[in-house]
Amino acid sequence: MTADAMAGVHERLAGYRERFDTLFADYFDTVARQRLPRSTFVPEALDLVRDMSLRGGKRLRVALLHEAARLVTPEAVAGLDEAALSIELLQTHGLIHDDIIDDSPLRRGGPSVYHAYRDRFPDRPQTALGLSILAGDLAAFLSVQVLLNAPVPVGLRQAMAAVQVTAGADTVVGQVLDLERDFGPAPDREALDLVSDYKSARYSVLAPLELGLLAAGEDPAAHRGELARYARLVGVSGQMRDDYLDLFADEAATGKAAGSDVREGRRSYAVCAVLEAATGGERELVESALAGSGCTPEAIGRIQEIARRHGVDEQLREDIRRTAAAAAAVAAGWRPRWRDEAVEFFRRLPLWAAQQVL
Amino acid sequence: MTADAMAGVHERLAGYRERFDTLFADYFDTVARQRLPRSTFVPEALDLVRDMSLRGGKRLRVALLHEAARLVTPEAVAGLDEAALSIELLQTHGLIHDDIIDDSPLRRGGPSVYHAYRDRFPDRPQTALGLSILAGDLAAFLSVQVLLNAPVPVGLRQAMAAVQVTAGADTVVGQVLDLERDFGPAPDREALDLVSDYKSARYSVLAPLELGLLAAGEDPAAHRGELARYARLVGVSGQMRDDYLDLFADEAATGKAAGSDVREGRRSYAVCAVLEAATGGERELVESALAGSGCTPEAIGRIQEIARRHGVDEQLREDIRRTAAAAAAVAAGWRPRWRDEAVEFFRRLPLWAAQQVL
Repeated sequence: MTADAMAGVHERLAGYRERFDTLFADYFDTVARQRLPRSTFVPEALDLVRDMSLRGGKRLRVALLHEAARLVTPEAVAGLDEAALSIELLQTHGLIHDDIIDDSPLRRGGPSVYHAYRDRFPDRPQTALGLSILAGDLAAFLSVQVLLNAPVPVGLRQAMAAVQVTAGADTVVGQVLDLERDFGPAPDREALDLVSDYKSARYSVLAPLELGLLAAGEDPAAHRGELARYARLVGVSGQMRDDYLDLFADEAATGKAAGSDVREGRRSYAVCAVLEAATGGERELVESALAGSGCTPEAIGRIQEIARRHGVDEQLREDIRRTAAAAAAVAAGWRPRWRDEAVEFFRRLPLWAAQQVL
Repeated sequence: MTADAMAGVHERLAGYRERFDTLFADYFDTVARQRLPRSTFVPEALDLVRDMSLRGGKRLRVALLHEAARLVTPEAVAGLDEAALSIELLQTHGLIHDDIIDDSPLRRGGPSVYHAYRDRFPDRPQTALGLSILAGDLAAFLSVQVLLNAPVPVGLRQAMAAVQVTAGADTVVGQVLDLERDFGPAPDREALDLVSDYKSARYSVLAPLELGLLAAGEDPAAHRGELARYARLVGVSGQMRDDYLDLFADEAATGKAAGSDVREGRRSYAVCAVLEAATGGERELVESALAGSGCTPEAIGRIQEIARRHGVDEQLREDIRRTAAAAAAVAAGWRPRWRDEAVEFFRRLPLWAAQQVL
């Protein structure tokens, strides 16, 4: 992709993000006005959901949603704002519960909701846990509610809510699969792809695509197979990239220590690739780092060396490139049917994401 | 109420329960057939959601739903089965998360989902916690999904899902209020009623009423005020009854030790009434039992004595009776508009529930 084309993609993402962030803040102001007069815990919970939501990053899902509608029409389309709110609230739900599951202190450059509550109630860990679970539950119900109340025809409200509820259930299944991945024998590629598909691709890529098409009057069910294929490839490619960066991260550039997946015993794409390539003492070293609690920076450094010696880094980059190219090829196939300009966005997106490691 | 009338109510409840339990088992069989081929954790999670759901008790919410439709018509009404599934799945969601929040080992005569997972993963408490949260999340999404896919007109699907999503959000708010109740100064009656309303009445009484009316073609929004008033009175009366039975339970009859609310530091209706009546050393005794971790059966016995000496037991029974009668009076007002036989059910229900302590 040329530098100009890259700049175009970035500009488009920035535009959606700005528009959305204002909308999202207004939404929470409206919810806050319905606060119960006799409670301090309820507004606190809403504030934490709000803060976590507004601390969002690139809002890539929102961009996918808008571009999906633009596959059909360049005109303004009703329902996209509510769909965007729903997408990001579902994301907040997942982050809040995920940070309890992983006991993560940090998220999006600030405290996780779980750790914010633990700081608030240092002597009552059970209260902190309970309020964190409930804050996540609230975000999930609000995520569906905003669609069911959208000012669009009732059939569209029902169809959009059905997309999000299915995405929500699939993501939960993906998180269960993710926990299962780190038990028993090492997962094969198919198992890893299944986790990426359920845990990320369905709510992050497929659902925004379906919501955008629905709002623009297109029936996504007629194209379900290729939409799901595109989403899965984007999800797998993106997960492989994250896993690659986790193992091979340049701490000086990213500010994050490399190897958190190894330290947490997570069988990521990168970890599995190293396990498969290594034998004998090398493999034992990787396995003991995965199992052990005292995994040092030196051990991570040695695992990086082992990986590079076997060409695992190059093999992963090639895999990311190939998977992103396959996703781009699926999107290119939409040209006869949908608007060129938006098709081009979907074609470029996976290539752009993959470039971060290439 | 006469013995005959009581028997009639019981028979009706039993009929709904039997029909529903078959339907619920069939539903889970269908969900189970969609299981992922490459997972053991996902079917396990579904099995735990299934077991908790099928271990249901009186299915009073299902009865309320069917009788709400019978307010309008004695004919069979489409959508009630899906509404019943949704109601009980939302209940399962709440129970699973509630048992994590309260760290409860038992529920409905068996292990809670949380403790089932802790037994399954004795060395990995974080995995057990994570899978329990996810099982509850799954039940929530399934609860809404079953309505959005119901074989009824799309407008009804949207309206029923909106009722349940609002009930879900309100119940979460109620659980937050419930946690808040046990902090700061003792709650007054209005605060206690607010908790009962949000935590129980809205999803247990109001939502089934609204769903039944919707399915039968009636617009519940036109009667929202009196439906909400009825639900709140039934919820408050039922909560007061539970709190009364908790403090004054006859262990020989119920098999449960009295005073669990005191032991857990819960400011129930009964606990607050004792606190208000007691002064000096008596009040100190109650407060130290609420705050302390070593609350003995003897302390509970002394609190019961204090309560009886001040007439708190009789005052609570009178309050339960009066609140139930007020709910019955609201239902009696529905006579000119809706079918007598079903109105009579709603009129009798709170009186019947209150009789357990009278």
